Amino acid sequence: MEGMELASFQIIASVGGARSSVMEALREAREGNFAEADAKIEEAGTFLAEAHKGHTGLIQKEAQGEQVPFSLLFMHAEDQLMTTITLRDIAVEMIEMHKKIG
Amino acid sequence: MEGMELASFQIIASVGGARSSVMEALREAREGNFAEADAKIEEAGTFLAEAHKGHTGLIQKEAQGEQVPFSLLFMHAEDQLMTTITLRDIAVEMIEMHKKIG
Amino acid sequence: MEGMELASFQIIASVGGARSSVMEALREAREGNFAEADAKIEEAGTFLAEAHKGHTGLIQKEAQGEQVPFSLLFMHAEDQLMTTITLRDIAVEMIEMHKKIG
Repeated sequence: MEGMELASFQIIASVGGARSSVMEALREAREGNFAEADAKIEEAGTFLAEAHKGHTGLIQKEAQGEQVPFSLLFMHAEDQLMTTITLRDIAVEMIEMHKKIG
Repeated sequence: MEGMELASFQIIASVGGARSSVMEALREAREGNFAEADAKIEEAGTFLAEAHKGHTGLIQKEAQGEQVPFSLLFMHAEDQLMTTITLRDIAVEMIEMHKKIG
Repeated sequence: MEGMELASFQIIASVGGARSSVMEALREAREGNFAEADAKIEEAGTFLAEAHKGHTGLIQKEAQGEQVPFSLLFMHAEDQLMTTITLRDIAVEMIEMHKKIG
């Protein structure tokens, strides 16, 4: 369980970083600063790749037949990860739209 | 388990309200009714704050060492909460975009 | 447990199809191909309806008092389902915005 708690906190920390980067990217795009927006999206991607490692490790454990116990904290970490990946995908589309409307 | 079922239903009800408010906010913004859109976003925030209480209470229980059992219904409530918070954040950005394009 | 693994994979496969359709819809809208965008959104809806069946079946099982075991894979399937429904709802709004800005 301790390993899972650690994995959860690592995911939550990385995802928190990613979410901030995405929101900053949107703010930059709103101001017409598209190079800065793109850089922030890339930064978010780095954070998400970090967060994804903990996720993949545990999914693989279960796939190999190991019983992974339920943890509310880990469930929360996963929710944060999946919603932030979605947020990033949408932000990329919104930045393109900002470029179009200038 | 009964307490958790109740918490789940309370979260799902509040989040449902929040989701409706966000979608209405977007519809208002589409029509150029920005004051109404902002009011609907605020309404969504009130619903989400309500929903967040049940969530926080259970996370804290687990953090204090209490074993919180797995419940599909609660997992669903949490998914609804986290996706709706994300939806609200994106809607705020979209409304700003609507203001820009008029 | 085997039934749950199968349900999880079926949800993940359908949701993956839905997610691709939504992203293609946004790409079509970006190019001004609104009929294609709307068709891709409809396609996403069909995939999501498929995915939703597995979800509803299990929620009903639990509601009838059957203990549904925790599975990381199913949690992941549910996260995918809920974030993709949200993504589709947002994409519909974004396509309307694309129509507005031309």
